Amino acid sequence: KMGEDGKHHADYANVTGLTKEETLQHVVDSYEALAADTTNWVANLSNCSSLLWHAYHSLNVPVNWTGFYVKNGDKNELILAPFQGKVACQIIQIGKGVCGTAASSHKTQVVPDVEKFPGHIACDGETKSEIVVPIVKDGKILGVLDLDCLSLEGFDEIDQKYLEELADLIVKTCEW
Amino acid sequence: KMGEDGKHHADYANVTGLTKEETLQHVVDSYEALAADTTNWVANLSNCSSLLWHAYHSLNVPVNWTGFYVKNGDKNELILAPFQGKVACQIIQIGKGVCGTAASSHKTQVVPDVEKFPGHIACDGETKSEIVVPIVKDGKILGVLDLDCLSLEGFDEIDQKYLEELADLIVKTCEW
Repeated sequence: KMGEDGKHHADYANVTGLTKEETLQHVVDSYEALAADTTNWVANLSNCSSLLWHAYHSLNVPVNWTGFYVKNGDKNELILAPFQGKVACQIIQIGKGVCGTAASSHKTQVVPDVEKFPGHIACDGETKSEIVVPIVKDGKILGVLDLDCLSLEGFDEIDQKYLEELADLIVKTCEW
Repeated sequence: KMGEDGKHHADYANVTGLTKEETLQHVVDSYEALAADTTNWVANLSNCSSLLWHAYHSLNVPVNWTGFYVKNGDKNELILAPFQGKVACQIIQIGKGVCGTAASSHKTQVVPDVEKFPGHIACDGETKSEIVVPIVKDGKILGVLDLDCLSLEGFDEIDQKYLEELADLIVKTCEW
C-alpha cells in the first residue's frame, strides 16, 4: 500500500546525507506521521525500531540493537518487545542492568562503556555502549527504549534529547 | 544475561556454513528453545523475526523483510507486528494482497514475482518475491508470517516446509 503522497512505507527508512540532528528529527517526524494511522503499540513500536535502526546506520553509527522492552503486566520485570538486531534476552528485572535501572529510576541512562556499568546484562557480548530511555506515563513506567552500539561512547546528549522526545511521543500516540 | 550454557542470546542469530535445510532447522530449534522461557507472543515473535533475518542472510538470500502481521481484534484486518527490515504498512485487509490472501485462505502463498500477484500491496517497492504462511489455531487465523526478498523466486517448497513448521510451533508456544 502506498501512502497518499505516492511514497512506499519503506521509504521512511531511507535517509542519507543529513546531519545527526536532522536525522534524529526525521525519526521523530516519521514516527509521528506513521502513528497517525494507528494507536496499536505493537505496530507503532515495530516501525519505530526500524526507523531508528536505519537512521543510525545512515549516520554510520554501528548500532547493533534498536528496540523496546515493556512492563510485563503486574510483574516487577520488563519483557522483550519489538526490535531490530540480533536475538535478545526476554526478561529483565526492574532495577537490574541498564534497562532495569532506567525503568526503576525513570531516568535516561547513557552508558559510554557497558563493561563499567554495575550489573550490566549482556544479551550480546559485542555491545560496547548503550542508551536507555524510560517510557513513563502519569508517573508509571510503561517500558524502555533501548539502543546498543558496537563502539564505545556511541551515544551522547544529542541522542538523549531526540530519543526522550520520541519516548514522549510514544506515550501520547499508543494505547497500551 | 547469558544462558545457562554460557551463550549470549545474540548467538542464536549467529549461523554460518550450514545448508539451507540445516539453517532453517536451526531457526526452528532456536525458536523452540527461546520460547521455552516465555509464552508472550510479542517477545516470541520479536526474537523469531530476528532469527529468520539472520538465518536467511547467512545463506546470502537477500531477504529485506522478515516478520509478522496479526489479526486486529475483531476487525477483518491484519495489523503490523514485530519484524526486521524497513518500515512497513500498518494495516492490511484480510483477503487483500499476499498477506491478506494467506489469511483468508489459510494457505501458504509462495509468490515468485510479486508484480504478477493480483492486488499485491507494496510496502517496499524493492521487494521482488514473497512467502506468506498463515498462523492458524483451531481453524481461526491468528496472523501471518511474512518474508520478502529483493530477488525474484526467493522462496520455494523447502522454505514453505520449515516456515510452516515454525508457524505450528508459534501456535503451540504463544498466548495471544
